[in-house]
Amino acid sequence: MAELKISVPLKIRFSEVDSMRIVWHGHYATFFEDAREAFGRQYGLGYLDVYGQGYYTPLVELSAKYKKPIMYDMEPVVTITYRPTDAAKIVFDYEITDPRDGEVLATGHSVQVFMDMDYRLVWANPEFYENWKRKWNV
Amino acid sequence: MAELKISVPLKIRFSEVDSMRIVWHGHYATFFEDAREAFGRQYGLGYLDVYGQGYYTPLVELSAKYKKPIMYDMEPVVTITYRPTDAAKIVFDYEITDPRDGEVLATGHSVQVFMDMDYRLVWANPEFYENWKRKWNV
Amino acid sequence: MAELKISVPLKIRFSEVDSMRIVWHGHYATFFEDAREAFGRQYGLGYLDVYGQGYYTPLVELSAKYKKPIMYDMEPVVTITYRPTDAAKIVFDYEITDPRDGEVLATGHSVQVFMDMDYRLVWANPEFYENWKRKWNV
Amino acid sequence: MAELKISVPLKIRFSEVDSMRIVWHGHYATFFEDAREAFGRQYGLGYLDVYGQGYYTPLVELSAKYKKPIMYDMEPVVTITYRPTDAAKIVFDYEITDPRDGEVLATGHSVQVFMDMDYRLVWANPEFYENWKRKWNV
Repeated sequence: MAELKISVPLKIRFSEVDSMRIVWHGHYATFFEDAREAFGRQYGLGYLDVYGQGYYTPLVELSAKYKKPIMYDMEPVVTITYRPTDAAKIVFDYEITDPRDGEVLATGHSVQVFMDMDYRLVWANPEFYENWKRKWNV
Repeated sequence: MAELKISVPLKIRFSEVDSMRIVWHGHYATFFEDAREAFGRQYGLGYLDVYGQGYYTPLVELSAKYKKPIMYDMEPVVTITYRPTDAAKIVFDYEITDPRDGEVLATGHSVQVFMDMDYRLVWANPEFYENWKRKWNV
Repeated sequence: MAELKISVPLKIRFSEVDSMRIVWHGHYATFFEDAREAFGRQYGLGYLDVYGQGYYTPLVELSAKYKKPIMYDMEPVVTITYRPTDAAKIVFDYEITDPRDGEVLATGHSVQVFMDMDYRLVWANPEFYENWKRKWNV
Repeated sequence: MAELKISVPLKIRFSEVDSMRIVWHGHYATFFEDAREAFGRQYGLGYLDVYGQGYYTPLVELSAKYKKPIMYDMEPVVTITYRPTDAAKIVFDYEITDPRDGEVLATGHSVQVFMDMDYRLVWANPEFYENWKRKWNV
Protein backbone atom coordinates (compact mmCIF):
# COMPACT_ATOMS: atom_id res chain seq x y z
CA MET A 1 0.00 0.00 0.00
CA ALA A 2 1.31 3.41 -0.96
CA GLU A 3 1.76 6.31 1.47
CA LEU A 4 0.36 9.50 -0.04
CA LYS A 5 1.79 12.71 1.37
CA ILE A 6 2.74 16.20 0.35
CA SER A 7 4.60 19.09 2.02
CA VAL A 8 3.67 22.74 1.70
CA PRO A 9 5.65 25.79 2.86
CA LEU A 10 3.66 28.23 5.02
CA LYS A 11 3.96 32.00 4.83
CA ILE A 12 3.09 33.51 8.22
CA ARG A 13 0.97 36.63 7.94
CA PHE A 14 1.40 39.56 10.29
CA SER A 15 -2.30 39.31 11.14
CA GLU A 16 -1.88 35.68 12.21
CA VAL A 17 0.42 36.66 15.07
CA ASP A 18 -1.34 37.54 18.32
CA SER A 19 -0.37 39.82 21.17
CA MET A 20 1.85 37.06 22.61
CA ARG A 21 3.80 37.59 19.35
CA ILE A 22 3.15 33.97 18.33
CA VAL A 23 0.75 32.57 15.74
CA TRP A 24 -2.75 32.31 17.19
CA HIS A 25 -3.69 28.65 17.65
CA GLY A 26 -6.90 28.99 15.65
CA HIS A 27 -4.96 29.68 12.45
CA TYR A 28 -3.55 26.15 12.41
CA ALA A 29 -6.92 24.99 11.05
CA THR A 30 -6.12 27.13 8.02
CA PHE A 31 -2.60 25.70 7.72
CA PHE A 32 -4.03 22.17 7.79
CA GLU A 33 -6.59 23.24 5.18
CA ASP A 34 -3.79 24.63 2.99
CA ALA A 35 -2.15 21.22 3.20
CA ARG A 36 -5.44 19.43 2.44
CA GLU A 37 -6.04 21.62 -0.60
CA ALA A 38 -2.49 21.01 -1.89
CA PHE A 39 -3.07 17.29 -1.39
CA GLY A 40 -6.36 17.55 -3.29
CA ARG A 41 -4.69 19.30 -6.21
CA GLN A 42 -1.81 16.82 -6.28
CA TYR A 43 -3.90 13.65 -6.04
CA GLY A 44 -7.17 14.76 -7.63
CA LEU A 45 -9.26 14.87 -4.47
CA GLY A 46 -9.91 18.60 -4.22
CA TYR A 47 -13.08 20.28 -3.03
CA LEU A 48 -14.25 20.94 -6.57
CA ASP A 49 -13.45 17.36 -7.67
CA VAL A 50 -15.56 15.98 -4.84
CA TYR A 51 -18.30 18.57 -5.31
CA GLY A 52 -18.41 17.73 -9.02
CA GLN A 53 -19.24 14.15 -8.01
CA GLY A 54 -22.19 15.36 -5.93
CA TYR A 55 -20.63 15.27 -2.47
CA TYR A 56 -19.43 17.46 0.34
CA THR A 57 -16.71 16.21 2.69
CA PRO A 58 -17.17 18.19 5.93
CA LEU A 59 -14.84 17.65 8.86
CA VAL A 60 -16.23 15.68 11.79
CA GLU A 61 -13.04 15.71 13.83
CA LEU A 62 -10.06 18.03 14.06
CA SER A 63 -7.34 18.02 16.68
CA ALA A 64 -4.03 19.78 17.07
CA LYS A 65 -1.10 19.56 19.44
CA TYR A 66 1.02 22.68 19.74
CA LYS A 67 4.59 21.69 20.58
CA LYS A 68 6.47 24.94 20.03
CA PRO A 69 5.20 28.42 19.20
CA ILE A 70 5.38 29.62 15.59
CA MET A 71 6.87 33.11 15.32
CA TYR A 72 6.36 35.68 12.59
CA ASP A 73 9.83 35.26 11.08
CA MET A 74 9.61 31.47 10.74
CA GLU A 75 8.96 29.71 7.44
CA PRO A 76 7.47 26.43 8.61
CA VAL A 77 6.42 23.51 6.43
CA VAL A 78 3.23 21.49 6.85
CA THR A 79 3.24 17.85 5.75
CA ILE A 80 -0.06 16.03 5.24
CA THR A 81 -0.27 12.23 5.14
CA TYR A 82 -3.29 10.25 3.96
CA ARG A 83 -4.30 7.50 6.41
CA PRO A 84 -6.18 4.67 4.67
CA THR A 85 -9.29 3.36 6.42
CA ASP A 86 -12.10 0.95 5.51
CA ALA A 87 -14.73 3.33 6.91
CA ALA A 88 -16.45 5.83 4.60
CA LYS A 89 -14.13 8.54 5.84
CA ILE A 90 -11.12 10.56 4.73
CA VAL A 91 -8.43 10.65 7.41
CA PHE A 92 -5.31 12.80 7.42
CA ASP A 93 -2.39 13.40 9.77
CA TYR A 94 -0.48 16.66 9.76
CA GLU A 95 2.94 17.72 10.95
CA ILE A 96 4.29 21.27 10.97
CA THR A 97 8.08 21.49 11.17
CA ASP A 98 10.75 24.17 11.18
CA PRO A 99 12.96 23.34 8.18
CA ARG A 100 15.96 25.07 9.75
CA ASP A 101 16.39 22.34 12.37
CA GLY A 102 13.67 19.80 11.60
CA GLU A 103 11.91 20.43 14.90
CA VAL A 104 8.23 19.51 15.09
CA LEU A 105 6.18 22.61 15.88
CA ALA A 106 2.73 21.01 15.81
CA THR A 107 0.83 17.90 14.82
CA GLY A 108 -2.77 17.44 13.75
CA HIS A 109 -5.40 14.90 12.76
CA SER A 110 -8.62 15.28 10.81
CA VAL A 111 -11.54 13.07 9.84
CA GLN A 112 -13.99 13.89 7.05
CA VAL A 113 -17.20 12.15 6.03
CA PHE A 114 -19.22 12.19 2.83
CA MET A 115 -22.49 14.12 2.66
CA ASP A 116 -24.76 14.38 -0.36
CA MET A 117 -26.06 17.72 -1.61
CA ASP A 118 -29.03 17.43 0.80
CA TYR A 119 -26.60 17.24 3.76
CA ARG A 120 -27.37 13.55 4.36
CA LEU A 121 -24.51 11.45 5.68
CA VAL A 122 -23.31 8.79 3.22
CA TRP A 123 -22.49 5.52 5.02
CA ALA A 124 -20.59 3.70 2.26
CA ASN A 125 -17.75 5.00 0.15
CA PRO A 126 -19.06 6.74 -2.99
CA GLU A 127 -18.04 4.95 -6.18
CA PHE A 128 -15.74 7.78 -7.30
CA TYR A 129 -13.84 7.49 -4.01
CA GLU A 130 -13.51 3.70 -4.37
CA ASN A 131 -12.05 4.31 -7.82
CA TRP A 132 -9.73 6.95 -6.41
CA LYS A 133 -8.48 4.54 -3.72
CA ARG A 134 -7.85 1.82 -6.30
CA LYS A 135 -6.01 4.21 -8.57
CA TRP A 136 -3.65 5.28 -5.79
CA ASN A 137 -3.50 1.85 -4.14
CA VAL A 138 -4.58 3.09 -0.70
CA MET B 1 -37.36 61.28 5.24
CA ALA B 2 -36.45 59.05 8.16
CA GLU B 3 -32.90 58.27 9.29
CA LEU B 4 -32.50 54.56 9.92
CA LYS B 5 -29.69 53.60 12.26
CA ILE B 6 -28.78 51.10 14.92
CA SER B 7 -25.93 50.73 17.43
CA VAL B 8 -24.29 47.46 18.37
CA PRO B 9 -21.77 46.79 21.17
CA LEU B 10 -18.61 44.98 20.08
CA LYS B 11 -16.82 42.33 22.08
CA ILE B 12 -13.12 42.33 21.23
CA ARG B 13 -11.68 38.85 20.89
CA PHE B 14 -8.16 38.02 22.03
CA SER B 15 -7.45 36.67 18.55
CA GLU B 16 -8.43 40.00 16.99
CA VAL B 17 -5.54 41.80 18.70
CA ASP B 18 -2.25 41.73 16.80
CA SER B 19 1.34 41.89 17.98
CA MET B 20 1.07 45.69 18.27
CA ARG B 21 -1.51 44.84 20.98
CA ILE B 22 -4.23 46.63 19.02
CA VAL B 23 -7.10 45.25 16.96
CA TRP B 24 -5.84 44.29 13.48
CA HIS B 25 -7.33 46.66 10.90
CA GLY B 26 -8.76 43.84 8.79
CA HIS B 27 -11.21 42.90 11.54
CA TYR B 28 -13.11 46.16 11.14
CA ALA B 29 -14.78 44.64 8.05
CA THR B 30 -16.28 42.12 10.45
CA PHE B 31 -17.38 44.83 12.88
CA PHE B 32 -19.10 46.67 10.04
CA GLU B 33 -20.70 43.40 8.97
CA ASP B 34 -21.95 42.83 12.51
CA ALA B 35 -23.59 46.25 12.31
CA ARG B 36 -25.04 45.50 8.87
CA GLU B 37 -26.51 42.22 10.08
CA ALA B 38 -28.03 43.90 13.15
CA PHE B 39 -29.50 46.52 10.85
CA GLY B 40 -30.87 43.77 8.62
CA ARG B 41 -32.54 42.02 11.54
CA GLN B 42 -33.99 45.26 12.90
CA TYR B 43 -35.34 46.60 9.61
CA GLY B 44 -36.02 43.39 7.68
CA LEU B 45 -33.18 43.68 5.19
CA GLY B 46 -31.03 40.75 6.28
CA TYR B 47 -29.02 38.44 4.05
CA LEU B 48 -31.69 35.74 4.21
CA ASP B 49 -34.50 38.26 3.52
CA VAL B 50 -32.73 39.45 0.40
CA TYR B 51 -31.71 35.94 -0.66
CA GLY B 52 -35.31 34.79 -0.24
CA GLN B 53 -36.26 37.43 -2.83
CA GLY B 54 -33.76 35.98 -5.29
CA TYR B 55 -30.90 38.43 -4.86
CA TYR B 56 -27.41 38.75 -3.48
CA THR B 57 -26.13 42.13 -2.29
CA PRO B 58 -22.33 41.94 -2.58
CA LEU B 59 -20.17 44.87 -1.54
CA VAL B 60 -18.63 46.92 -4.33
CA GLU B 61 -16.97 49.48 -2.08
CA LEU B 62 -15.70 49.45 1.47
CA SER B 63 -13.55 52.06 3.16
CA ALA B 64 -12.40 52.65 6.71
CA LYS B 65 -10.59 55.41 8.54
CA TYR B 66 -8.79 54.36 11.70
CA LYS B 67 -8.69 57.30 14.11
CA LYS B 68 -7.52 55.67 17.31
CA PRO B 69 -6.42 52.11 18.03
CA ILE B 70 -8.89 49.69 19.61
CA MET B 71 -7.37 47.82 22.54
CA TYR B 72 -8.36 44.44 23.95
CA ASP B 73 -9.99 45.84 27.08
CA MET B 74 -12.23 48.33 25.25
CA GLU B 75 -15.93 47.75 24.69
CA PRO B 76 -16.58 49.89 21.62
CA VAL B 77 -19.93 50.48 19.94
CA VAL B 78 -20.51 50.50 16.19
CA THR B 79 -23.33 52.64 14.79
CA ILE B 80 -24.60 52.01 11.26
CA THR B 81 -26.64 54.61 9.36
CA TYR B 82 -28.58 53.96 6.16
CA ARG B 83 -27.84 56.54 3.44
CA PRO B 84 -30.74 56.84 0.97
CA THR B 85 -29.81 56.98 -2.72
CA ASP B 86 -31.73 56.84 -5.98
CA ALA B 87 -29.23 54.43 -7.51
CA ALA B 88 -29.86 50.68 -7.29
CA LYS B 89 -27.48 50.47 -4.35
CA ILE B 90 -27.49 50.05 -0.59
CA VAL B 91 -25.23 52.59 1.10
CA PHE B 92 -24.21 52.65 4.76
CA ASP B 93 -21.99 54.80 6.97
CA TYR B 94 -20.38 53.41 10.09
CA GLU B 95 -18.93 54.94 13.22
CA ILE B 96 -17.12 53.09 15.99
CA THR B 97 -16.96 54.96 19.28
CA ASP B 98 -15.64 54.39 22.78
CA PRO B 99 -18.72 54.77 25.01
CA ARG B 100 -16.58 55.77 28.00
CA ASP B 101 -15.76 59.17 26.48
CA GLY B 102 -17.64 59.26 23.19
CA GLU B 103 -14.43 59.41 21.17
CA VAL B 104 -14.64 58.27 17.57
CA LEU B 105 -12.29 55.32 17.02
CA ALA B 106 -13.07 54.69 13.36
CA THR B 107 -15.47 55.50 10.55
CA GLY B 108 -16.49 53.51 7.51
CA HIS B 109 -18.55 53.52 4.35
CA SER B 110 -19.94 50.69 2.24
CA VAL B 111 -21.82 50.35 -1.04
CA GLN B 112 -23.69 47.21 -2.08
CA VAL B 113 -25.36 46.35 -5.38
CA PHE B 114 -28.00 43.83 -6.33
CA MET B 115 -27.05 40.65 -8.20
CA ASP B 116 -29.41 37.93 -9.30
CA MET B 117 -28.72 34.26 -8.59
CA ASP B 118 -26.71 34.03 -11.84
CA TYR B 119 -24.37 36.77 -10.57
CA ARG B 120 -25.71 39.33 -13.05
CA LEU B 121 -25.76 42.93 -11.88
CA VAL B 122 -29.28 44.36 -11.48
CA TRP B 123 -29.44 47.95 -12.70
CA ALA B 124 -32.82 48.99 -11.24
CA ASN B 125 -34.05 48.55 -7.70
CA PRO B 126 -35.78 45.18 -7.27
CA GLU B 127 -39.48 45.53 -6.43
CA PHE B 128 -39.05 44.16 -2.91
CA TYR B 129 -36.45 46.86 -2.21
CA GLU B 130 -38.72 49.61 -3.59
CA ASN B 131 -41.41 48.34 -1.21
CA TRP B 132 -38.92 48.26 1.63
CA LYS B 133 -37.90 51.88 0.97
CA ARG B 134 -41.54 53.00 0.88
CA LYS B 135 -42.30 51.17 4.09
CA TRP B 136 -39.46 52.89 5.96
CA ASN B 137 -39.80 56.20 4.11
CA VAL B 138 -36.19 56.30 2.91
CA MET C 1 -15.26 20.13 44.57
CA ALA C 2 -17.20 22.68 42.61
CA GLU C 3 -17.93 22.48 38.89
CA LEU C 4 -17.22 25.82 37.23
CA LYS C 5 -19.04 26.41 33.97
CA ILE C 6 -20.64 29.15 31.95
CA SER C 7 -22.82 29.28 28.83
CA VAL C 8 -22.53 31.89 26.09
CA PRO C 9 -24.88 32.49 23.15
CA LEU C 10 -23.20 32.62 19.75
CA LYS C 11 -24.14 34.99 16.94
CA ILE C 12 -23.26 33.40 13.59
CA ARG C 13 -21.70 35.86 11.15
CA PHE C 14 -22.42 35.73 7.44
CA SER C 15 -18.67 35.53 6.82
CA GLU C 16 -18.40 32.44 9.02
CA VAL C 17 -20.59 30.40 6.67
CA ASP C 18 -18.74 28.70 3.83
CA SER C 19 -19.83 27.68 0.35
CA MET C 20 -21.44 24.52 1.79
CA ARG C 21 -23.71 27.04 3.55
CA ILE C 22 -22.56 25.79 6.96
CA VAL C 23 -20.18 27.35 9.48
CA TRP C 24 -16.57 26.63 8.47
CA HIS C 25 -15.00 24.23 10.98
CA GLY C 26 -12.06 26.54 11.69
CA HIS C 27 -14.34 29.12 13.31
CA TYR C 28 -15.14 26.79 16.20
CA ALA C 29 -11.73 27.71 17.69
CA THR C 30 -13.13 31.23 17.95
CA PHE C 31 -16.37 30.02 19.54
CA PHE C 32 -14.37 28.08 22.12
CA GLU C 33 -12.26 31.18 22.70
CA ASP C 34 -15.40 33.26 23.21
CA ALA C 35 -16.41 30.76 25.88
CA ARG C 36 -12.96 30.82 27.46
CA GLU C 37 -12.98 34.62 27.61
CA ALA C 38 -16.46 34.67 29.15
CA PHE C 39 -15.24 32.13 31.70
CA GLY C 40 -12.21 34.32 32.39
CA ARG C 41 -14.37 37.37 33.00
CA GLN C 42 -16.80 35.46 35.21
CA TYR C 43 -14.20 33.71 37.35
CA GLY C 44 -11.28 36.16 37.22
CA LEU C 45 -9.01 34.09 34.99
CA GLY C 46 -8.97 36.26 31.87
CA TYR C 47 -6.05 36.86 29.56
CA LEU C 48 -5.29 40.22 31.16
CA ASP C 49 -5.57 38.78 34.69
CA VAL C 50 -3.03 36.10 33.84
CA TYR C 51 -0.80 38.49 31.90
CA GLY C 52 -0.85 40.89 34.85
CA GLN C 53 0.65 38.07 36.94
CA GLY C 54 3.50 37.67 34.47
CA TYR C 55 2.27 34.66 32.53
CA TYR C 56 0.94 33.60 29.16
CA THR C 57 -1.33 30.56 28.90
CA PRO C 58 -0.95 29.30 25.31
CA LEU C 59 -2.91 26.30 24.11
CA VAL C 60 -0.97 23.07 23.72
CA GLU C 61 -3.96 20.96 22.68
CA LEU C 62 -7.26 21.67 20.98
CA SER C 63 -9.72 19.18 19.59
CA ALA C 64 -13.24 19.40 18.23
CA LYS C 65 -15.89 16.92 17.17
CA TYR C 66 -18.45 18.24 14.72
CA LYS C 67 -21.74 16.39 15.25
CA LYS C 68 -24.15 18.46 13.20
CA PRO C 69 -23.58 21.44 10.92
CA ILE C 70 -24.25 24.94 12.24
CA MET C 71 -26.33 26.98 9.80
CA TYR C 72 -26.47 30.76 9.46
CA ASP C 73 -29.93 31.11 11.01
CA MET C 74 -29.12 29.12 14.16
CA GLU C 75 -28.44 30.72 17.53
CA PRO C 76 -26.32 28.10 19.23
CA VAL C 77 -24.99 28.20 22.78
CA VAL C 78 -21.49 27.18 23.84
CA THR C 79 -20.97 25.85 27.36
CA ILE C 80 -17.46 25.70 28.83
CA THR C 81 -16.61 23.53 31.83
CA TYR C 82 -13.42 23.74 33.86
CA ARG C 83 -11.76 20.35 34.40
CA PRO C 84 -9.59 20.31 37.53
CA THR C 85 -6.17 18.66 37.21
CA ASP C 86 -3.10 18.40 39.41
CA ALA C 87 -0.79 19.16 36.49
CA ALA C 88 0.31 22.76 35.82
CA LYS C 89 -2.35 23.05 33.15
CA ILE C 90 -5.72 24.63 32.50
CA VAL C 91 -8.15 22.15 30.98
CA PHE C 92 -11.60 22.92 29.55
CA ASP C 93 -14.37 20.96 27.88
CA TYR C 94 -16.78 22.64 25.48
CA GLU C 95 -20.24 21.77 24.20
CA ILE C 96 -22.15 23.66 21.53
CA THR C 97 -25.90 23.02 21.53
CA ASP C 98 -28.96 24.18 19.65
CA PRO C 99 -31.24 25.66 22.35
CA ARG C 100 -34.34 24.97 20.26
CA ASP C 101 -34.09 21.22 20.80
CA GLY C 102 -31.08 20.73 23.04
CA GLU C 103 -29.18 18.83 20.36
CA VAL C 104 -25.41 18.74 20.66
CA LEU C 105 -23.83 20.34 17.59
CA ALA C 106 -20.19 19.99 18.61
CA THR C 107 -17.88 19.20 21.51
CA GLY C 108 -14.36 20.35 22.22
CA HIS C 109 -11.42 20.03 24.58
CA SER C 110 -8.48 22.33 25.26
CA VAL C 111 -5.32 22.23 27.35
CA GLN C 112 -3.28 25.31 28.24
CA VAL C 113 0.08 25.58 29.97
CA PHE C 114 1.82 28.44 31.75
CA MET C 115 4.68 30.27 30.08
CA ASP C 116 6.64 33.15 31.56
CA MET C 117 7.26 36.37 29.63
CA ASP C 118 10.40 34.81 28.11
CA TYR C 119 8.30 31.98 26.64
CA ARG C 120 9.71 29.41 29.05
CA LEU C 121 7.37 26.65 30.12
CA VAL C 122 6.42 26.74 33.82
CA TRP C 123 6.31 23.25 35.29
CA ALA C 124 4.53 23.99 38.60
CA ASN C 125 1.35 25.96 39.14
CA PRO C 126 2.10 29.67 39.61
CA GLU C 127 1.12 30.91 43.05
CA PHE C 128 -1.68 33.12 41.75
CA TYR C 129 -3.24 30.06 40.08
CA GLU C 130 -2.95 28.00 43.28
CA ASN C 131 -4.76 30.81 45.07
CA TRP C 132 -7.36 30.92 42.33
CA LYS C 133 -7.98 27.18 42.65
CA ARG C 134 -8.35 27.43 46.40
CA LYS C 135 -10.74 30.35 46.10
CA TRP C 136 -13.02 28.44 43.73
CA ASN C 137 -12.45 25.05 45.39
CA VAL C 138 -11.32 23.31 42.23
CA MET D 1 11.65 59.18 -9.42
CA ALA D 2 11.37 55.41 -9.43
CA GLU D 3 8.10 53.48 -9.25
CA LEU D 4 8.39 50.68 -6.73
CA LYS D 5 5.96 47.81 -7.22
CA ILE D 6 5.70 44.07 -6.86
CA SER D 7 3.16 41.43 -7.91
CA VAL D 8 2.16 38.45 -5.80
CA PRO D 9 0.02 35.45 -6.84
CA LEU D 10 -2.88 34.69 -4.49
CA LYS D 11 -4.01 31.21 -3.54
CA ILE D 12 -7.73 31.28 -2.69
CA ARG D 13 -8.58 29.19 0.35
CA PHE D 14 -11.81 27.21 0.58
CA SER D 15 -12.56 29.00 3.84
CA GLU D 16 -12.30 32.40 2.14
CA VAL D 17 -15.29 31.67 -0.10
CA ASP D 18 -18.66 32.56 1.39
CA SER D 19 -22.12 31.13 0.85
CA MET D 20 -22.48 33.25 -2.32
CA ARG D 21 -19.58 31.05 -3.55
CA ILE D 22 -17.36 34.14 -3.96
CA VAL D 23 -14.48 35.37 -1.82
CA TRP D 24 -15.82 37.28 1.18
CA HIS D 25 -14.97 40.98 0.83
CA GLY D 26 -13.27 41.16 4.22
CA HIS D 27 -10.47 38.85 3.05
CA TYR D 28 -9.17 41.45 0.62
CA ALA D 29 -7.54 43.21 3.58
CA THR D 30 -5.44 40.06 3.93
CA PHE D 31 -4.61 40.00 0.22
CA PHE D 32 -3.47 43.61 0.42
CA GLU D 33 -1.43 42.72 3.49
CA ASP D 34 0.18 39.81 1.63
CA ALA D 35 1.20 42.31 -1.03
CA ARG D 36 2.48 44.79 1.58
CA GLU D 37 4.57 42.09 3.26
CA ALA D 38 6.03 40.97 -0.08
CA PHE D 39 6.84 44.60 -0.81
CA GLY D 40 8.47 44.90 2.61
CA ARG D 41 10.65 41.83 2.01
CA GLN D 42 11.62 42.98 -1.48
CA TYR D 43 12.47 46.57 -0.56
CA GLY D 44 13.52 46.24 3.08
CA LEU D 45 10.48 47.89 4.64
CA GLY D 46 8.93 44.90 6.41
CA TYR D 47 7.16 44.93 9.75
CA LEU D 48 10.24 43.61 11.55
CA ASP D 49 12.53 46.13 9.79
CA VAL D 50 10.34 48.99 10.95
CA TYR D 51 9.83 47.53 14.42
CA GLY D 52 13.59 47.10 14.75
CA GLN D 53 13.87 50.87 14.23
CA GLY D 54 11.45 51.51 17.10
CA TYR D 55 8.28 52.17 15.16
CA TYR D 56 4.91 50.71 14.34
CA THR D 57 3.19 51.63 11.06
CA PRO D 58 -0.53 51.09 11.68
CA LEU D 59 -3.06 51.70 8.93
CA VAL D 60 -5.13 54.87 9.21
CA GLU D 61 -7.01 54.40 5.94
CA LEU D 62 -7.98 51.39 3.86
CA SER D 63 -10.38 51.30 0.95
CA ALA D 64 -11.31 48.70 -1.63
CA LYS D 65 -13.41 48.65 -4.77
CA TYR D 66 -14.74 45.26 -5.78
CA LYS D 67 -15.13 45.15 -9.57
CA LYS D 68 -15.74 41.45 -10.19
CA PRO D 69 -16.18 38.57 -7.78
CA ILE D 70 -13.23 36.28 -7.08
CA MET D 71 -14.19 32.61 -7.32
CA TYR D 72 -12.54 29.63 -5.64
CA ASP D 73 -10.92 28.32 -8.82
CA MET D 74 -9.29 31.62 -9.79
CA GLU D 75 -5.59 32.31 -9.30
CA PRO D 76 -5.55 36.11 -9.11
CA VAL D 77 -2.51 38.33 -8.78
CA VAL D 78 -2.23 41.35 -6.50
CA THR D 79 0.07 44.21 -7.52
CA ILE D 80 1.14 46.79 -4.94
CA THR D 81 2.57 50.17 -5.95
CA TYR D 82 4.33 52.60 -3.61
CA ARG D 83 2.98 56.16 -3.87
CA PRO D 84 5.56 58.75 -2.78
CA THR D 85 4.32 61.55 -0.52
CA ASP D 86 5.96 64.32 1.47
CA ALA D 87 3.78 63.63 4.48
CA ALA D 88 5.04 61.29 7.22
CA LYS D 89 2.97 58.50 5.75
CA ILE D 90 3.35 55.31 3.73
CA VAL D 91 0.85 55.15 0.88
CA PHE D 92 0.14 52.17 -1.36
CA ASP D 93 -2.21 51.39 -4.23
CA TYR D 94 -3.32 47.84 -4.96
CA GLU D 95 -4.76 46.09 -7.99
CA ILE D 96 -6.01 42.52 -8.13
CA THR D 97 -6.21 41.06 -11.63
CA ASP D 98 -7.13 37.77 -13.26
CA PRO D 99 -4.00 36.76 -15.20
CA ARG D 100 -6.04 34.68 -17.66
CA ASP D 101 -7.52 37.80 -19.27
CA GLY D 102 -5.96 40.73 -17.46
CA GLU D 103 -9.28 41.86 -16.05
CA VAL D 104 -9.18 44.03 -12.93
CA LEU D 105 -11.04 42.27 -10.12
CA ALA D 106 -10.46 44.87 -7.41
CA THR D 107 -8.46 47.95 -6.48
CA GLY D 108 -7.37 49.26 -3.12
CA HIS D 109 -5.60 52.08 -1.32
CA SER D 110 -3.94 52.25 2.08
CA VAL D 111 -2.32 54.90 4.24
CA GLN D 112 -0.03 54.12 7.17
CA VAL D 113 1.48 56.44 9.75
CA PHE D 114 4.43 56.09 12.11
CA MET D 115 3.85 55.46 15.81
CA ASP D 116 6.54 55.07 18.44
CA MET D 117 6.51 52.17 20.90
CA ASP D 118 4.31 54.23 23.24
CA TYR D 119 1.65 54.52 20.52
CA ARG D 120 2.36 58.22 19.97
CA LEU D 121 1.92 59.50 16.44
CA VAL D 122 5.16 60.63 14.80
CA TRP D 123 4.64 63.79 12.75
CA ALA D 124 7.90 63.85 10.76
CA ASN D 125 9.49 61.03 8.79
CA PRO D 126 11.79 58.94 11.01
CA GLU D 127 15.41 59.10 9.91
CA PHE D 128 15.52 55.46 8.81
CA TYR D 129 12.57 56.12 6.49
CA GLU D 130 14.24 59.22 5.02
CA ASN D 131 17.26 57.06 4.32
CA TRP D 132 15.07 54.37 2.81
CA LYS D 133 13.42 56.92 0.49
CA ARG D 134 16.78 58.27 -0.62
CA LYS D 135 18.11 54.79 -1.26
CA TRP D 136 15.17 53.93 -3.53
CA ASN D 137 14.84 57.42 -4.98
CA VAL D 138 11.17 57.82 -4.03
